[in-house]
Amino acid sequence: MFEARLGSTLLLKKIVDALRDMLNQTTLDCSDSGIQLQSMDNSHVSLVALSLQVDCFEKYRCDKNVSLGVDLKSLAKVLKCASGDDAVTISAPDKADKLGLSFESLNKERFADYELRLLNLDQEHLGIPDTDYSCVVHMPATEFARICRDMTTFSESVTIVCSKDSIKFTANGEMGTANIKLTETSKGDVSLQVDDPVTQSFAGRYLNTFTRATPLSERVKIGMAADVPLLVEYPIEDFGYIRYYLAPKVDDPDA
Amino acid sequence: MFEARLGSTLLLKKIVDALRDMLNQTTLDCSDSGIQLQSMDNSHVSLVALSLQVDCFEKYRCDKNVSLGVDLKSLAKVLKCASGDDAVTISAPDKADKLGLSFESLNKERFADYELRLLNLDQEHLGIPDTDYSCVVHMPATEFARICRDMTTFSESVTIVCSKDSIKFTANGEMGTANIKLTETSKGDVSLQVDDPVTQSFAGRYLNTFTRATPLSERVKIGMAADVPLLVEYPIEDFGYIRYYLAPKVDDPDA
Amino acid sequence: MFEARLGSTLLLKKIVDALRDMLNQTTLDCSDSGIQLQSMDNSHVSLVALSLQVDCFEKYRCDKNVSLGVDLKSLAKVLKCASGDDAVTISAPDKADKLGLSFESLNKERFADYELRLLNLDQEHLGIPDTDYSCVVHMPATEFARICRDMTTFSESVTIVCSKDSIKFTANGEMGTANIKLTETSKGDVSLQVDDPVTQSFAGRYLNTFTRATPLSERVKIGMAADVPLLVEYPIEDFGYIRYYLAPKVDDPDA
Repeated sequence: MFEARLGSTLLLKKIVDALRDMLNQTTLDCSDSGIQLQSMDNSHVSLVALSLQVDCFEKYRCDKNVSLGVDLKSLAKVLKCASGDDAVTISAPDKADKLGLSFESLNKERFADYELRLLNLDQEHLGIPDTDYSCVVHMPATEFARICRDMTTFSESVTIVCSKDSIKFTANGEMGTANIKLTETSKGDVSLQVDDPVTQSFAGRYLNTFTRATPLSERVKIGMAADVPLLVEYPIEDFGYIRYYLAPKVDDPDA
Repeated sequence: MFEARLGSTLLLKKIVDALRDMLNQTTLDCSDSGIQLQSMDNSHVSLVALSLQVDCFEKYRCDKNVSLGVDLKSLAKVLKCASGDDAVTISAPDKADKLGLSFESLNKERFADYELRLLNLDQEHLGIPDTDYSCVVHMPATEFARICRDMTTFSESVTIVCSKDSIKFTANGEMGTANIKLTETSKGDVSLQVDDPVTQSFAGRYLNTFTRATPLSERVKIGMAADVPLLVEYPIEDFGYIRYYLAPKVDDPDA
Repeated sequence: MFEARLGSTLLLKKIVDALRDMLNQTTLDCSDSGIQLQSMDNSHVSLVALSLQVDCFEKYRCDKNVSLGVDLKSLAKVLKCASGDDAVTISAPDKADKLGLSFESLNKERFADYELRLLNLDQEHLGIPDTDYSCVVHMPATEFARICRDMTTFSESVTIVCSKDSIKFTANGEMGTANIKLTETSKGDVSLQVDDPVTQSFAGRYLNTFTRATPLSERVKIGMAADVPLLVEYPIEDFGYIRYYLAPKVDDPDA
């Protein structure tokens, strides 16, 4: 038996919104330490990892490890039927072919139950190595979202230049060029820890997809280092995170 | 001469919004007791009845009975040009081929007059018999609208199970199943008067069309009984109502 | 060297919004007295003139007259990337092929630079003669916008009847007719100076395009006289204006 109760449906709505542009279907790996998800996006270019520790939940019970294959569009439709402040209980009996979702309104006058068909999905076991990033930047999540959106107005390719005292985003296209530079400030909105400066280019539309997680966190962490994928991490309160990974564009030496 | 003045255009806007997804054109039957309308929807499945008593109006004059055939899309366009708090006077001289609508702003600085061509429509004379419903449920109109919307996410067919202590809505489709149950509460949001429990299924999209009347009323009345159409009634202040009728789905015994 | 700094990007956004439905590309004529623009709309029916005096700007430097050909869609995209309360500096070195736009956030923590390719456009030199209008009407800009929108619901052609004590707008179409009449009031919302009454008809869609300038001004000035184009003028604070001109429809005497 697996059963997990969240005090607020809003958190689950935000998580599904952060995933559903990137993944049609995915597998939730539930164990006694919480819920994990690792998946390549639909086009197999970027990677997303979700971790929700047991402390996230008001109640949590997982008698034995279970992998639940879910269709995210269907899950989003069910969540659209709930109020953000409903409590939600996710459940699956052992060997279940259905995922149960029960919503209880604050005043306990309204009960809604949904059952979603579970999917048999091929499990992707992705090893994501721990990485020391030579550049680590924290900034407001809304600012990062805005920059990614603005850059992709200009070009499909966004260059990030991370140096000791600033992070600069550049896009260069038909229409012209765009540069946005953020510096570390006394107010602490932007913080930079840079051991080695890095300049890398990325496909802007994946960055934009990552920013669907913006409502989850006040701040976003960006990690960069030579020859490793970009990390974009949104903490989920103190109990988890969504991490996105995207390999830099490689310049073709013959081009 | 027919002339009727409403203190607020907003009421007329809400009434037209409640009708115009269901009807393209309709006939308003005006008499010295008020305005009546009875019509099948465009696909001739459900039925709507509107009644506005004379007390609805600031002024009301109807020298002799007159039937005014109107195009609801055109009427909606005219109403979109008025502020909700404008006063509106609807008028038609005897043997008119045009319906007059005059709007007067609160501060009386702005006068707008519109004339809409009247239509010659075949009159449908529908006898709607009075019915004793074995189940009568009152609930917040917004809650009913939300449930209908949520159910049709799952299936075109919505089953309503009305029992002594609860009303339950169920939908069962490709994606999974949905159940929403409301119980009578001390707060009185939901009230149930059930002589004989009833279970019936309905085409969800008609229910959704009915809920266009939600802005008209705080509360909606649902009436059900064996072998008669469902009644969904929205009172219009103390002076009228919109009633929708929809026959239950009949299960094919050979299916 | 040309350089002009506005304390608020919002003003520039409103100006570009007022132009971009009407013009794809246009030329800004910059001199030591400010920025001017005169252009026919894309379909060469109506005419727009913009004037921004030097006092509009926090800083203004124009070493020699320069004509800057800009693509308004691209400019609008760049402005969408800025906050309304950012300061913006527009610049072009002599013989530039790029227009620079620099945005600085209020707290000076964020710097965004854009470069837009300049266009080589054929200059239209339009002589707009000063005209004495026999009818001059001032009214709230939002009211004029609403009337133009409402009229074009009924007909492509809008007739304006300006008399000593009222201005009346009329549209007559398939659906019916619409009349909106405004009178001069003690509150002074509408003011009329009418030497000779005028009745003229105009193509409603151009009027609607003009009302894109509504956010620029509380009030709009309308000027009419026999045999001259309609003037619709939106003042820009005390430092400039956008003026639109539209010739009346001529009735075909043989029709």
